[in-house]
Amino acid sequence: MTIWTKDQMASIHTMLNPRSLAIVGATPRQQYGGRMLNAALKMKGRVNVYAVNPKYDEILGVKSYKSITDLPETPDVVAVVVPYNHVLSTLKEAHAKGTRAAIVISAGFSERGLSDRADLQGEVAKFARESGLRISGPNCLGLANIRDDIGLTSSSRQMDGVTGTVGLVCQSGATLFGPFLARAADSGMGLSYVVSTGNEADLDFSDFARYLLDDAGTTVIAGFVEGFKNAQKFIEVAKLAAERGKPIVLIKIGRSDLGKRAASSHTAALTGSDALYDAICKQYGVIRVPSYDDLLEVAQLLAQSRKPKQPGVAVVSHSGGICSLTADMCGQQGLDLPVLSENALGVINGILKGFGWAANPADVTGKANSDFFPAIMEAMINEPGVGTLAIASAGKEQQVDQIIALREKTDKNVAYMWTGTRDASASLTKLKAAGVPLFYTPDSLARGLRHLIDYHAWHEKRMKQGFASAPAMNATQNETLTRLQSLKRSALSESESKQLIAAWGVPVSMEVCAKDVETAVKAAEKIGYPVVLKADSPDIPHKTEAGVVRLNLRSADEVRTAHSTILANAKKHAPNANLNGVLVQEMVSGGVEVIVGVNYDPQLGPTLVFGSGGVMVEVYKDVAMRHCPITPTEAHEMIAEVKGAKLLHGFRGKPACDIDALADVLVKVSHLAVNLNGQLAELDINPLLVLPEGQGVKAVDALVALKG
Amino acid sequence: MTIWTKDQMASIHTMLNPRSLAIVGATPRQQYGGRMLNAALKMKGRVNVYAVNPKYDEILGVKSYKSITDLPETPDVVAVVVPYNHVLSTLKEAHAKGTRAAIVISAGFSERGLSDRADLQGEVAKFARESGLRISGPNCLGLANIRDDIGLTSSSRQMDGVTGTVGLVCQSGATLFGPFLARAADSGMGLSYVVSTGNEADLDFSDFARYLLDDAGTTVIAGFVEGFKNAQKFIEVAKLAAERGKPIVLIKIGRSDLGKRAASSHTAALTGSDALYDAICKQYGVIRVPSYDDLLEVAQLLAQSRKPKQPGVAVVSHSGGICSLTADMCGQQGLDLPVLSENALGVINGILKGFGWAANPADVTGKANSDFFPAIMEAMINEPGVGTLAIASAGKEQQVDQIIALREKTDKNVAYMWTGTRDASASLTKLKAAGVPLFYTPDSLARGLRHLIDYHAWHEKRMKQGFASAPAMNATQNETLTRLQSLKRSALSESESKQLIAAWGVPVSMEVCAKDVETAVKAAEKIGYPVVLKADSPDIPHKTEAGVVRLNLRSADEVRTAHSTILANAKKHAPNANLNGVLVQEMVSGGVEVIVGVNYDPQLGPTLVFGSGGVMVEVYKDVAMRHCPITPTEAHEMIAEVKGAKLLHGFRGKPACDIDALADVLVKVSHLAVNLNGQLAELDINPLLVLPEGQGVKAVDALVALKG
Repeated sequence: MTIWTKDQMASIHTMLNPRSLAIVGATPRQQYGGRMLNAALKMKGRVNVYAVNPKYDEILGVKSYKSITDLPETPDVVAVVVPYNHVLSTLKEAHAKGTRAAIVISAGFSERGLSDRADLQGEVAKFARESGLRISGPNCLGLANIRDDIGLTSSSRQMDGVTGTVGLVCQSGATLFGPFLARAADSGMGLSYVVSTGNEADLDFSDFARYLLDDAGTTVIAGFVEGFKNAQKFIEVAKLAAERGKPIVLIKIGRSDLGKRAASSHTAALTGSDALYDAICKQYGVIRVPSYDDLLEVAQLLAQSRKPKQPGVAVVSHSGGICSLTADMCGQQGLDLPVLSENALGVINGILKGFGWAANPADVTGKANSDFFPAIMEAMINEPGVGTLAIASAGKEQQVDQIIALREKTDKNVAYMWTGTRDASASLTKLKAAGVPLFYTPDSLARGLRHLIDYHAWHEKRMKQGFASAPAMNATQNETLTRLQSLKRSALSESESKQLIAAWGVPVSMEVCAKDVETAVKAAEKIGYPVVLKADSPDIPHKTEAGVVRLNLRSADEVRTAHSTILANAKKHAPNANLNGVLVQEMVSGGVEVIVGVNYDPQLGPTLVFGSGGVMVEVYKDVAMRHCPITPTEAHEMIAEVKGAKLLHGFRGKPACDIDALADVLVKVSHLAVNLNGQLAELDINPLLVLPEGQGVKAVDALVALKG
Repeated sequence: MTIWTKDQMASIHTMLNPRSLAIVGATPRQQYGGRMLNAALKMKGRVNVYAVNPKYDEILGVKSYKSITDLPETPDVVAVVVPYNHVLSTLKEAHAKGTRAAIVISAGFSERGLSDRADLQGEVAKFARESGLRISGPNCLGLANIRDDIGLTSSSRQMDGVTGTVGLVCQSGATLFGPFLARAADSGMGLSYVVSTGNEADLDFSDFARYLLDDAGTTVIAGFVEGFKNAQKFIEVAKLAAERGKPIVLIKIGRSDLGKRAASSHTAALTGSDALYDAICKQYGVIRVPSYDDLLEVAQLLAQSRKPKQPGVAVVSHSGGICSLTADMCGQQGLDLPVLSENALGVINGILKGFGWAANPADVTGKANSDFFPAIMEAMINEPGVGTLAIASAGKEQQVDQIIALREKTDKNVAYMWTGTRDASASLTKLKAAGVPLFYTPDSLARGLRHLIDYHAWHEKRMKQGFASAPAMNATQNETLTRLQSLKRSALSESESKQLIAAWGVPVSMEVCAKDVETAVKAAEKIGYPVVLKADSPDIPHKTEAGVVRLNLRSADEVRTAHSTILANAKKHAPNANLNGVLVQEMVSGGVEVIVGVNYDPQLGPTLVFGSGGVMVEVYKDVAMRHCPITPTEAHEMIAEVKGAKLLHGFRGKPACDIDALADVLVKVSHLAVNLNGQLAELDINPLLVLPEGQGVKAVDALVALKG
């Protein structure tokens, strides 16, 4: 798949590493154009900066050109800060000059919610793609290369953050150059590049993220997205990020309808189903967080930590109360605080001499600010079950120096939960400068460590199993699909639906579609009593309510009676229904009922849904979702996620069920979902009976709707 | 109930408002005793401060007395900073001198985890209670009256916080004088008193909270508790706080076993079941929060806000991206952001002139820092559905002045979500000084507003319904209890258990305990077929497994056969079982199965549990809990909390169930739980069948264990 072209990446590279820049719409006033010029002039000597504005001869001490055409060289990047109705002509002029990258600050496009403005944005996008003059924006605030101190932005914020390895991509410019950069400076986090993408007429979040994956100086990507323009591209970039071992930490709007409402009024981006986004983030290792501080803290933790050698965490503090709250929050996140060995206890008790409490967490009282603290920390971090040491304190400089020294010699992780004021102090400044991952509350520390441990565990597991891919359709599948499509109906009957899933290897109940009563009786005798009779019609999806299902029939007579009742009820319920015949089916009993379904999110594509059967799915919404296709491991994870799956393990003395067969069916249905993307509208297998171990599963009913 | 005596409250009053203080164990070194003296000397002229230490003649420029006895006056408060084994004698000396209040800083008691130290602490506690010399501590860091700038503490922290109306009580001194006071100063929150209670040998969290309820200058109580020494007292103080309209905001350890482990190693306090604490906090209006920042932000919000006139929230920001994240988090908390009226939209659109987005949330771009901002804010806050206006910005001083002016003239609430750096700026400093409730992330703002709205809604509802009280036992109940206790057994049989609950008015299935087969047949004929037969024995609690239940018996013959099978199986299963006879029971069908139970938490007392029946309670732990007794409103709330209660509302075409009758039974069982506190070990009604509307409920099985 060539989602990303070399030229596209080259345009992004130019935007972030320009040798020359023209600002069209530069002004002396400190508004968008003026602020952009002001920021650019700081790069003088490193970047050739040209102001373009026919109204002026000179702006902020530099010559103002009448047009792009007049410029003495082809600018690497054109920044566009003109009224919306002049944007397209400006881009055309830049293209004529030979420029391949533009940053469109100008607003007034799709975010206005007016169709003519959206159309205009569409034209801009089309021009960008066709001309090869790739653009960021419109309605953005620009971008910056923090490492090389290059800022192409209309924000007045100083880029005085610490240089580091987190790349930050944000649709909202005001959020990027507002809370994110403000807090990044507060927390001393290190950034490589920051990009605001605005309305994403052309280049979007995933494109910039893709670029950062190739950048050796970026190890973590942090993002704020209101809605993906192309969610499939996001999935691809997440998969690539996993392969490169670069985590993506993301705020994604859409937790609630209010957020979607606000986001769509703002950027006019669609947002898909939120639960599905959650599922996809988990599936592809994207760390979804709720808030500014979480985004920055978690990104910095990941950038400044190794893969934990062990999942265990050791906590040390000068205060028992802080210990207990920190331990409580760690426990709530399911973190493991290993009990200390006799050896470690001996070392710590030898230092504490009866004060404090030698344990994990360790309350070391005043010894947290003493020459003895390194010995305590080493005793804890060297414990075999410990991968990360968290210090919860507001230590003096001596303590901070000890921690920085420990980090230099250990191959395990260290994090600091600062309990003092957030105001700059010598200790805090030192911790930030040294890149020690910082948190300010026990709950954010615990959440952060949970993400760190989970990400690396996910990554290891994922690299082992790889990402799923669906095999191409085989001849039988092709033939079955063609035959069912030739019926020229969206809805399929039960037996037709089962033919479809059977072609993908899903076991279905033994059954015969009988055209008349004697064929039904013969089929029953062949299948063996007891049997089930059901009307087989694409027009009667709710069979029980229509009275066209008869269970547990034990003789030819019962089959005959049932047959005539079903025909009568079908006629009464839906006089004009297409009736293929009456389905004679083995009566499958035992086993646990589950539901397997496929649907297609307009943004995210094929989705597999698995859930508890019966009342439980309706009352408890007890389902797991995944983007398709899935691996067998993912199938087992889905099963484990569903609470009702307890029933599959031999609940209340019943036999354990055939979970491997269930997982196999989930994988096969996920392949079907991919193969039929664009042709299938939805599929429900309800119920799928999971039989005792070794006996497999059986689809007892199924409902398929093809696309029109 | 006289939990709190006048003398006890007077001792606390003295601690917080001393005219004289003796520090026993004062030293020139800046350790606990020295720091305490240092802090106390700042009160010179307002409080007479005496150093007591026989080793010195003078400390830090003041005379050092040899003993308390030698002091020229009886000190209001004695601060004890001597080795643990001298604490009791020091207290005795102080008592002899006439002192009624002491703060024991000295550590080395129950927190050591040694039984002799716990015993010593017990002696100290006993002396305090018997002598009337009430103490705070041991193992605390003291307390402070922020309003009057009086600090009796061994912490070196400056008490330079803003004065206000939040009283803060904290078991952990290092947490109080560490993160809490540091962050309180950061966030400009206003405090009245701060108290660390340490090991709580005598006075505990609830005692100080009780004192603060009487203090007119304290409107909100914030607390950090690792474990309650007396949880019943906490419930009483929470009830009183509700009556006074003073919210309690609380961090309570015990979310996880790790937290409990750390807390018990630290303060040796027991912690009860966490889910039950959650339930009790909800029941008594205590706002439980997870973290330092939440505690302070929510307490300050409550202290600086009125009861919201409407639950609706309006959000305004200079940035669309900030709007959408804030709206998303508000939506996730279930907050209502009312759609703006045409009128308000007109005003805002007239100002925005096509830029930004007039809506709720409103993205007003640069107009957030302009002369037009007051008009925008007023248009939004004056909307009829809006009770609170939240500004999400990092505004200039002009904006802050506009907000402060708005707060002065509106009777609605205003909150600020600051999106800039946390470092002091002129704007931020002004916001803090004016007491504008501040948040720093969209999710904490949304959580805070949720608490504000929920607390006042809860308070209004609670003040209408009052707190439940259980009526005294009536003659029948007394007689039934006496009779069942006279059996001298802990376990009761099914019929005995049902007699107990029937005495409290719980409808039970019609049944006869038959001593022989012909009585059983007669009973069956009288009850009417079909009937159920069960062995009635206190020694066979799991009847189905023992094969001593026969359902759906339709004739005298079937009753006879069932009777002999049951007797045979009972003999086989439990040869020595006490067998009262065979229970002949009406066969109740229809209705929805639920579970009602009572148990007694060692800390929190009688608890009512209600849940879905059958597999759902086991798979989904779908239960609601309350402290007993409960009101009918609380009963209905319990029912609504249980997800499976959907089945009671006429699920899938079934008739709606008699929810009023169910609520009535929950109330009655809660009375039983209170009446039998100390005599009942546990009670399970499983299942209770909830029949269709108007037909009531019926206990089909019940199991009671009395206390030995």
